[in-house]
Amino acid sequence: MNDAEFLEAYLKDRKKIIEEALERYLPGKDGPSTELLEAMHYSVFAGGKRIRPILCLASLEACGGDLAPAMPVACALELIHTYSLIHDDLPAMDNDDFRRGKPTNHKVFGEAVAILAGDALLTEAFVLLSRVEKVRVAAERRLAVISEIAGAAGIAGMVGGQALDILAAKNASDFNDLEQIHRRKTGALIIAAVKSGAILAGASDVRIHALSEYASHVGIAFQIADDILNVEGDKNLMGKNTGSDAALGKVTYPSFLGLEKAKTVLAEHVGAAQSAIAAFDARALPLRMIARYIMERKS
Amino acid sequence: MNDAEFLEAYLKDRKKIIEEALERYLPGKDGPSTELLEAMHYSVFAGGKRIRPILCLASLEACGGDLAPAMPVACALELIHTYSLIHDDLPAMDNDDFRRGKPTNHKVFGEAVAILAGDALLTEAFVLLSRVEKVRVAAERRLAVISEIAGAAGIAGMVGGQALDILAAKNASDFNDLEQIHRRKTGALIIAAVKSGAILAGASDVRIHALSEYASHVGIAFQIADDILNVEGDKNLMGKNTGSDAALGKVTYPSFLGLEKAKTVLAEHVGAAQSAIAAFDARALPLRMIARYIMERKS
Repeated sequence: MNDAEFLEAYLKDRKKIIEEALERYLPGKDGPSTELLEAMHYSVFAGGKRIRPILCLASLEACGGDLAPAMPVACALELIHTYSLIHDDLPAMDNDDFRRGKPTNHKVFGEAVAILAGDALLTEAFVLLSRVEKVRVAAERRLAVISEIAGAAGIAGMVGGQALDILAAKNASDFNDLEQIHRRKTGALIIAAVKSGAILAGASDVRIHALSEYASHVGIAFQIADDILNVEGDKNLMGKNTGSDAALGKVTYPSFLGLEKAKTVLAEHVGAAQSAIAAFDARALPLRMIARYIMERKS
Repeated sequence: MNDAEFLEAYLKDRKKIIEEALERYLPGKDGPSTELLEAMHYSVFAGGKRIRPILCLASLEACGGDLAPAMPVACALELIHTYSLIHDDLPAMDNDDFRRGKPTNHKVFGEAVAILAGDALLTEAFVLLSRVEKVRVAAERRLAVISEIAGAAGIAGMVGGQALDILAAKNASDFNDLEQIHRRKTGALIIAAVKSGAILAGASDVRIHALSEYASHVGIAFQIADDILNVEGDKNLMGKNTGSDAALGKVTYPSFLGLEKAKTVLAEHVGAAQSAIAAFDARALPLRMIARYIMERKS
């Protein structure tokens, strides 16, 4: 088995256990709020790559932790990511009709239910993070994880980043704005995912710091790769139209740096991510391969 | 000082310390997301009665707890309440132009920012609940509080209730639907507020259960009183148009029960709330007076 095959098998396996856990943790579709629950399920199971939960679990493994107690945390990360996609797609925001090749949530369920489905996913993430578990993790660690994830989702992270993004679409913006937007909109939750895994595993501050560095570069690399795929990706593999950023006049890495320079910067961030965790042993192999995968992925 | 004067002074004092804490805990209006932060401040300081934080602190007092460590929790409750008002008022939901006599959030800041301001307030509530505090409360208790509040805000509580409310406006609904909607939309967070105060104070399970009973009746009483005020309240005191429920054909307690019967049921719930905490000592006086105030308030 070569590296690419190993990674493919690893990602497939992780995706499976994460999706099984999501099925288990999401409230069932029966009950008095059926339409709302259906809307939540629709977007959670719309074919996401589960990058954030996978990174959380890979970080945990790199620090020698057990998977089981981390599953609610991994799933909470995916719920928060999904909520942000639903709200970002709304007519008042980016007004997107398609996401991952499927009609967006509000296109299927209407705006009111889509707003509520987003609200519900965000809230249920904290239900998952705080509920009494059979598997014992020290309450202090669980509080630290909630603090990381809430901070990443809030004003200093995702919501603040989305607000900047909306304003940037209206105003002239520069490269600093672009980096600031991505750091908050995508980067913050990726860092929180990786740190949460390390915190749950009881890693030392030095290791948590190194993993945070890794995640910071991975987050930026991920965004640059996304922007590049929007320029030259395969529409069929992507499940959405390419070239949409350029058509909207969106500020992206390729639009600022040019396509070739953007690819160089992407490679630099992937390299820096690898360096940050150079001192880790073989258990960090998945983290290393995920960093490379970002550069090589086709969708 | 008679009872009414005492209660007025008490509520005024509590409102003041809660609003000072809200000013302290909310991120300042400067920074890169100024418009978003302004939108958050606008609705948080739009003249709310602060009933949920006041109930949380009154419950804490009734159990002999210290106020200081409870302030972030009290404020988090108000942020969650405010987020729900902003999202409920959106054009896709209730499409309200005014709230407490002022233009609603989306009327001032636009729909995109209003959606984000709601998202941000919900998220910042969990930032507040989980952040490292100088004042020490056992991590287990803090987790239990987060679990209560997240559960009350989620599918089983507020979001689920709002979804039912939207569907009820479209479909025929009966008295059971009405009670179910209010129990989840308003009742759940009021119960969580009262339970959180008791949990922070380290109250026994028996006391937490009694306070939960109290809060359950207070929550329903609060809603019935609201419905009654919508029929016969003073528009100038209320800061919003009365009669709006009837005009919208909304299902309310007076529309189902008739006005006089609704007043009787209100009095019964206030009585049941008092009975639930009959065994508490004089420190529960504020809780007792708040229950009565619900029945007597004019706005």
